[in-house]
Amino acid sequence: MPQRLLTHARLATFTHTGTPYGLIEDGVLAIDSGTIAFAGPAADLPQACAGFPKEDLAGRLVTPGLIDCHTHVVFGGDRAREFEMRLEGASYEEVARAGGGIVSTVKATRAASEDELLEGVLSRVDALIAEGVTAIEIKSGYGLDQETELKMLRAARKVGSLRPVTVRTTFLGAHAVPAEYKDRADAYLDDICLPALDAAHAEGLVDAVDGFCEGIAFSPDQIAKVFDKAKALGLPVKLHAEQLSNLGGTALAASYGALSADHLEYLDEAGVRAMADSGTIAVILPGAFYTLRETQAPPIDLLRQHKVPMALATDCNPGSSPLASLLLTMNMGCTLFRMTPEEALAGATREAARVLGFTDRGTLEAGKRADLAIWNVQHPAELSYRIGFNSLEKRIFGGSE
Amino acid sequence: MPQRLLTHARLATFTHTGTPYGLIEDGVLAIDSGTIAFAGPAADLPQACAGFPKEDLAGRLVTPGLIDCHTHVVFGGDRAREFEMRLEGASYEEVARAGGGIVSTVKATRAASEDELLEGVLSRVDALIAEGVTAIEIKSGYGLDQETELKMLRAARKVGSLRPVTVRTTFLGAHAVPAEYKDRADAYLDDICLPALDAAHAEGLVDAVDGFCEGIAFSPDQIAKVFDKAKALGLPVKLHAEQLSNLGGTALAASYGALSADHLEYLDEAGVRAMADSGTIAVILPGAFYTLRETQAPPIDLLRQHKVPMALATDCNPGSSPLASLLLTMNMGCTLFRMTPEEALAGATREAARVLGFTDRGTLEAGKRADLAIWNVQHPAELSYRIGFNSLEKRIFGGSE
Ligand SMILES: [Zn+2]
Ligand SMILES: [Zn+2]
Repeated sequence: MPQRLLTHARLATFTHTGTPYGLIEDGVLAIDSGTIAFAGPAADLPQACAGFPKEDLAGRLVTPGLIDCHTHVVFGGDRAREFEMRLEGASYEEVARAGGGIVSTVKATRAASEDELLEGVLSRVDALIAEGVTAIEIKSGYGLDQETELKMLRAARKVGSLRPVTVRTTFLGAHAVPAEYKDRADAYLDDICLPALDAAHAEGLVDAVDGFCEGIAFSPDQIAKVFDKAKALGLPVKLHAEQLSNLGGTALAASYGALSADHLEYLDEAGVRAMADSGTIAVILPGAFYTLRETQAPPIDLLRQHKVPMALATDCNPGSSPLASLLLTMNMGCTLFRMTPEEALAGATREAARVLGFTDRGTLEAGKRADLAIWNVQHPAELSYRIGFNSLEKRIFGGSE
Repeated sequence: MPQRLLTHARLATFTHTGTPYGLIEDGVLAIDSGTIAFAGPAADLPQACAGFPKEDLAGRLVTPGLIDCHTHVVFGGDRAREFEMRLEGASYEEVARAGGGIVSTVKATRAASEDELLEGVLSRVDALIAEGVTAIEIKSGYGLDQETELKMLRAARKVGSLRPVTVRTTFLGAHAVPAEYKDRADAYLDDICLPALDAAHAEGLVDAVDGFCEGIAFSPDQIAKVFDKAKALGLPVKLHAEQLSNLGGTALAASYGALSADHLEYLDEAGVRAMADSGTIAVILPGAFYTLRETQAPPIDLLRQHKVPMALATDCNPGSSPLASLLLTMNMGCTLFRMTPEEALAGATREAARVLGFTDRGTLEAGKRADLAIWNVQHPAELSYRIGFNSLEKRIFGGSE
């Protein structure tokens, strides 16, 4: 792969100490064989890189490629009609009777072929890629039967072979209890979810295991059963926790050394402490908060105080967050949750990389993979400040456009 | 200009009676010389159009081209650093001392050349065009001196010659009192604003006259002075009213037969009645509500009850609404203000056209200008339901791509 030298760049390195964003104003970035060979002040460029073919960025900002670390982008159907019914004043019961809710997505996802799922997910992933996204997590969880959970994960894997983006798959069989197991959540886990996880893992389709710990889904004890299975298989875990109430899911996840706990609107200080102790990252999902018109924001100040890293993600899904823009997610993190633009950008790069277990990306420094986004902006705060505007100049994935 | 026949189209006509959106499921749309020659059920296609060259839309949705009827897209500088300072906890005073607020935009706009203004506005208008926008209103109001107000309006007019989009210009000299006239608003109006309006009108730069009626800007009596001048010049008026408090600006605007009253968060029923009586349209601006984290929504139900038409617009501006997406505005109108998707789409097409005084566009019917947006969606509600996702297949402007 070719060598490249990006000159006259502003670098948001997220490593360089002493400046917000790890910003280097007169920076250069050298790429060799898909890897960053040097990222730093122009004055410090090593002799070995000085001869690489130059590209003058004219002061443009370079960030690590964006990473969307929590998505449900593989699904069948859409829920636009349900969205409309609610706005026309329909009750939840009327929506349910008309076939709405997650049940409708499960039905459409089961009915879809793998190719149909692929067509839908590619349209959404393409929107993310157009905003500088270079890695994405994709969850299962709309099958709730073995065949469909595996079909979803296969479609997710294929995205990574059809598009220049790294995909991390997450098994989310414990997303909801399917209608055929109504009021029998434990039986669903034993009969369907755990065997499906075994099968998906055997096929190499699982990078991590997730669950939804909530009154309307699974209890902490039920989630523990799923996590024990993940542990037995050597798979890392994460959890949808404390979104609508405080059940203690975050502390449970932390006790399993979870990569992340996600949502967290109702998290208390004990839960924050547990995350700090276990090194579990907070994944902040303002898209669902916005769509559901929630009023309780996650405890951003407590997370800061206890130095729990915060990642940001779209939570792109057909029900509670039909959001396909990580830039808009950053604006929402700032506007709705009062995160700083620096926290928002770190949350969509460095911290999102850690959530997905990556050690080879998420910052601009020698030795990291050359996944970059180059922006037509003067200052990194502009990326969070603008709403519905894409400033991307170009994206570099593993050293190439 | 060529004739065209779009077949197998879903048409959101906003005229066809008896169906939401005026939707025609198996529709055809014939274009002749830039004008819609027929829009209706395939079965009703007149013989005269049957021979036009066919384009099969495969069931895609066709809407009138979107219209953004309230923007401040011409400006210098940006306010990203101010956005960041506020999120880092700076007080308004600290922001002001660092040169923030509208003052900073006035300073940057005065300092910018017309070409520099043009470069900025084109980047924002291009983002709107990419979402199917075919007409846009652009206001002055960051000059607050004659030279800069005219420079802004000239840049706005140029947008219409450089891009396939219709531009309507609005003189907004009564946007704020400039620092040099602090506490002397009347003197500013007499010395600067009204003479600038005369000069701009003489140069053919003004399609309508606007003001900002608010405690921090101009009183109803001061606005009346501006409106009297507009009336003398034969120009239609509109008003930023009842955004942060209820000063009765809307009733004043209605008494002048205003095209629209805009924002309206604090509008009361008497104001709604005044609008209904005068035929003044409500322009709903959720971007500013979202950005400023307001809690009082405009009285959507009262507007509905009194049959006051509602338009939707981005209010794109560097301070209170750095929003460059009319699709996202539609989602915000639904999510934040509980408008229906049908109201949102009508508000960005038919009603927005009326706000700008257009009688030749905004619906799909014979005789109207062929400004169309063609979407990769099954149902018009999808346009409002998705967040940060652009479903546009293509745009037709005056009959051509
Ligand atoms: Zn989720
Ligand atoms: Zn405005």
